[in-house]
Amino acid sequence: MDFKDVINGRRSVNFFDPQRPVPDELLEEMIGLASLAPSSFNLQPWNLILVRDPERKRRLQKLAWDQPKISEAPVVLVVLADRSAWQSGHPVVERNFEEMVASGRLGRDQRQWFDDARMDLYGQSLEKQQAFANKNTGFFAMALMLAAKHLGLDTHPMDGFDHQAVRELFKVPERYWIPLLLAVGYFKAGETLLPPKWRKSVPEIVVDFESG
Amino acid sequence: MDFKDVINGRRSVNFFDPQRPVPDELLEEMIGLASLAPSSFNLQPWNLILVRDPERKRRLQKLAWDQPKISEAPVVLVVLADRSAWQSGHPVVERNFEEMVASGRLGRDQRQWFDDARMDLYGQSLEKQQAFANKNTGFFAMALMLAAKHLGLDTHPMDGFDHQAVRELFKVPERYWIPLLLAVGYFKAGETLLPPKWRKSVPEIVVDFESG
Repeated sequence: MDFKDVINGRRSVNFFDPQRPVPDELLEEMIGLASLAPSSFNLQPWNLILVRDPERKRRLQKLAWDQPKISEAPVVLVVLADRSAWQSGHPVVERNFEEMVASGRLGRDQRQWFDDARMDLYGQSLEKQQAFANKNTGFFAMALMLAAKHLGLDTHPMDGFDHQAVRELFKVPERYWIPLLLAVGYFKAGETLLPPKWRKSVPEIVVDFESG
Repeated sequence: MDFKDVINGRRSVNFFDPQRPVPDELLEEMIGLASLAPSSFNLQPWNLILVRDPERKRRLQKLAWDQPKISEAPVVLVVLADRSAWQSGHPVVERNFEEMVASGRLGRDQRQWFDDARMDLYGQSLEKQQAFANKNTGFFAMALMLAAKHLGLDTHPMDGFDHQAVRELFKVPERYWIPLLLAVGYFKAGETLLPPKWRKSVPEIVVDFESG
């Protein structure tokens, strides 16, 4: 599908067809495409919990403003942002270091620099850890939504949930933040979408604080 | 360009052709496409500072590990995440409320609900504000990188900069976080890219904390 059609056609869909499941292979293809998103030092601080079981979805729905799309969508992804994925010893950090050395991007003697850089950029405060984890997982989640559209699937990103209760329901460790839930499925035939919401124009997006 | 080619072809490019400028219209088209990214309550908590002037780029480069691509890329975007874009009175909040009422998505009598929801989800802590601003701006930044690729441009997202010093250089108000700098331009003919970095496999991305 053409990129322009994907980005124009992606909508946050409120009505999913509960009778039309998402095959495992398609979901894997979607996640695989999204995994190509870039990340800080390639640390990929994202994980997913897949919720397909009707009873788990029902319990999740109760913690998420009782939104029916959680039960109606065949899959709901609990998107996780790993706030610890910059720390020495984390498997992704160690694998990146080894791969950077192997590819010649970094010398083994630059380990101290590599550790200091991550600590300085991400480890100095909760504010920095939270920015690191959520920004990168935002890259990944956007790629998930666009990859879904490309594969003929629809999605709906959701913020409206009790963060602490969802953490407890799925036993999500404290090192993760839960930036969003993402419903995935097929738009239900016969339903109508409202027109797309307004967007800021380019001159509204571009700012300059120096001239004023 | 096909979506698959866009997502597979996007690379963080280290070498930009300083002789090949990015036309204003193309940059505007890129930002316009990216602005279609979804956001929490459509609050679009993102802004951009465009840095084209060689002297401004030189000063920015000094604050960003002296990375030559900042001077070489014809445009560098300072990507901003507005941590206040959920607050009552913010122009984007007020415009969304009016548009939701006009489109029938919300009743005017639901204003209190709307205010409470945003306060509860984003206003309770710095942790929540930081997650809100950075996650949504992550959506936008990913869309920027893919839209650039679709339009034949290359990009490089950068974390390696002195956050406070960049804030001061561009007089960025405290309400913003600066999640990344994004170099935009054309890959320099004759240079070679290293092979893409490894990515986590789907089984490494999908987790389940309940079963173990």
